[in-house]
Amino acid sequence: MAGLRGKLVMAQSGGPTAVINSSICGVIQEALKHREVEGVYGAINGIMGVLHENLIDLAQESPETVERLRRTPSSALGSCRRKLDQTDLERVLAVFKAHNIRYFFYNGGNDSMDTAHKISQMATAAGYEMHVMGIPKTVDNDLVETDHCPGFGSVARWMAIAMRDAGRDTEAIANTSTAIKIIEAMGRDSGWITGATVLAKQDPDDAPQLIYLPEVAFEIDKFLNDVQKVYDRLGHVLIAVSEGVRDKDGKILVKSDSVDAFGHVQLEGVGDYLANVIKKKLGIKARCDKPGTIQRVSILGASQSDLQEAYLVGQRAVQYAVEGHNGYMVALVRESDEPYSCTTGMVALEKVANAKKVIPADYISPEGNFVNDKFITYAKPLAGELLPDYMRFQKYFVSKQLDAYQR
Amino acid sequence: MAGLRGKLVMAQSGGPTAVINSSICGVIQEALKHREVEGVYGAINGIMGVLHENLIDLAQESPETVERLRRTPSSALGSCRRKLDQTDLERVLAVFKAHNIRYFFYNGGNDSMDTAHKISQMATAAGYEMHVMGIPKTVDNDLVETDHCPGFGSVARWMAIAMRDAGRDTEAIANTSTAIKIIEAMGRDSGWITGATVLAKQDPDDAPQLIYLPEVAFEIDKFLNDVQKVYDRLGHVLIAVSEGVRDKDGKILVKSDSVDAFGHVQLEGVGDYLANVIKKKLGIKARCDKPGTIQRVSILGASQSDLQEAYLVGQRAVQYAVEGHNGYMVALVRESDEPYSCTTGMVALEKVANAKKVIPADYISPEGNFVNDKFITYAKPLAGELLPDYMRFQKYFVSKQLDAYQR
Repeated sequence: MAGLRGKLVMAQSGGPTAVINSSICGVIQEALKHREVEGVYGAINGIMGVLHENLIDLAQESPETVERLRRTPSSALGSCRRKLDQTDLERVLAVFKAHNIRYFFYNGGNDSMDTAHKISQMATAAGYEMHVMGIPKTVDNDLVETDHCPGFGSVARWMAIAMRDAGRDTEAIANTSTAIKIIEAMGRDSGWITGATVLAKQDPDDAPQLIYLPEVAFEIDKFLNDVQKVYDRLGHVLIAVSEGVRDKDGKILVKSDSVDAFGHVQLEGVGDYLANVIKKKLGIKARCDKPGTIQRVSILGASQSDLQEAYLVGQRAVQYAVEGHNGYMVALVRESDEPYSCTTGMVALEKVANAKKVIPADYISPEGNFVNDKFITYAKPLAGELLPDYMRFQKYFVSKQLDAYQR
Repeated sequence: MAGLRGKLVMAQSGGPTAVINSSICGVIQEALKHREVEGVYGAINGIMGVLHENLIDLAQESPETVERLRRTPSSALGSCRRKLDQTDLERVLAVFKAHNIRYFFYNGGNDSMDTAHKISQMATAAGYEMHVMGIPKTVDNDLVETDHCPGFGSVARWMAIAMRDAGRDTEAIANTSTAIKIIEAMGRDSGWITGATVLAKQDPDDAPQLIYLPEVAFEIDKFLNDVQKVYDRLGHVLIAVSEGVRDKDGKILVKSDSVDAFGHVQLEGVGDYLANVIKKKLGIKARCDKPGTIQRVSILGASQSDLQEAYLVGQRAVQYAVEGHNGYMVALVRESDEPYSCTTGMVALEKVANAKKVIPADYISPEGNFVNDKFITYAKPLAGELLPDYMRFQKYFVSKQLDAYQR
């Protein structure tokens, strides 16, 4: 089995990440080594670039520009969100035929894998031979059949550092200012990013103390009780909450653009909502930080293993395709937790398309308000080294000389 | 003139920053060199620690712990926001006398300088000789009589990187998702942090395209017009907006009802508000990121010069005090923009107490929706190096083979 001779098109889809450009870098640098690949093109704005024939010749870019992809966040080719219908699919095939494109690589999440799968199926049905490969990418980490997804490790690291910093900040100001801090994390259907804030912990009482995931039905009374208990013990509370937390009926707690009983539009923000509930019901000052897309795309927080693996899945996509494969996503296969090692495999696109991986129940604490050691073992090597440990004073108290001050 | 023999108390106040602990490090390491200083104490939670005699002996902490202060964000001694009345001031003096404290260093913003000034005045009036020094700290950069404030350079760097990343992200997704991104920056009365997002720019059309500051009266119609113009030209818009933007009558645009101990209104959400106005009035999808306290305290983004200067102002406070000075804040004095160099000076606490420095009018563009080269010259060396430049593809377009796709 060997790859056809023809051109390659690479495209990116969905939300950009800190490391997705490393995957393009891996594709370009590897593709240039194989004589089967007669041209390396990039589609501008994902599949839209194929539909409109907005293709650029990546082989003409300077090697320095290509190498710098590894240090540039977001999608250098531009992204899109578009579900293809039959007419679109036919157009895609027409474009591929017109340019003798035999390799199509789609870099994205489960929607993108669905698109890649459909293209692969249609080409086969039309008797047009192709090598279609999916390259996984999503901070949400919700693709099935892969240990994890490039993009997740970096956002996990970023959020863990943000939580550690917020923890130190809140400890310092709790007595006269905000004692409760909520960080709202991305993740509509799965709590991987939210759970990763657990990596902030150096000591048992460190931030975060509470974690709320879409995988566990959210009850406001239990939440308030949880918060009060931590507050009574520590005098401050750090909470990670997923944007997608939902009630026992599966209804998302706070939806953007919904209108509350007072006719006020709810701005995106379960975190702001919960901060207000705490203020009203518990009478404790609470604030929410919502880093939003900054968490998704920050190169400042990028994890080294994530950067390397994002490159690897691009590189391997070329290798698998040139070996003659078609209709697979490159998967990451963990070989060992510590020392961490990971290799790649292939999984049929149809198994990945539109499926979603949530946090397994046995990674979540019995109370449903935290993650356990299994989660930590899983997530820690993906985020990699956080930062040097922060210090704390030993606090050698000086003997008091005066009576207590009563004000 | 020489310093008295006695103990030293150091305290931190206001919002913690990424570099404020470097100032404690500077104080401790310098104080241990001077025989006039018979003890180096830290007050837990700012002036509250003095009132309640919660003092710790910093000389007993290991040198390694002290050195690690430079890499630990937030206030290691804890912070507070407390305005002292006469009874409090008398208690402070009683505590100082009881422990033979002759050196008091308060590390904070203008409220803290006011507190330090009152303590210095009262000690003088009571005939108790002291060396009271202010050590500047505020991300808001609004202290007068100093070129800038430790803490600002790091938040400037963090926000510039966040804006650059958000710019790349929005460019990539503008065509099918969010085309307008607002980043809400801290800054109640001054726009220094908001303005610093300008440092994100590598090319003229890079993010941010619009900057709104509390120094310029905000007009919603002009804002919408500005946004539409940039959108029409580029297809996306990146906006930095200060939490404290206000209308022509000086009324803050969006405020929540809570008030802190100094009577400052806690602000949340002008960014979300404006994103909704854009959606409603212009019909373009807009989102707001509000990194909140993460911007203030992130060690990930810390500026090297800021870390060094935060150490320096702590070190110099000890040196000035041991030389016999009383009632001054250590100021940073810029000697040159490029190559950047900065030394220290002293300024009377009463000149700094409660005054606020806003962005000079000649640092702001004539249209009032951006900052100019003077601002950049000022802020750039404080933020220091951002990150390696990001790449862009040259985009060598492939010739189209088919008719245009009409869907």
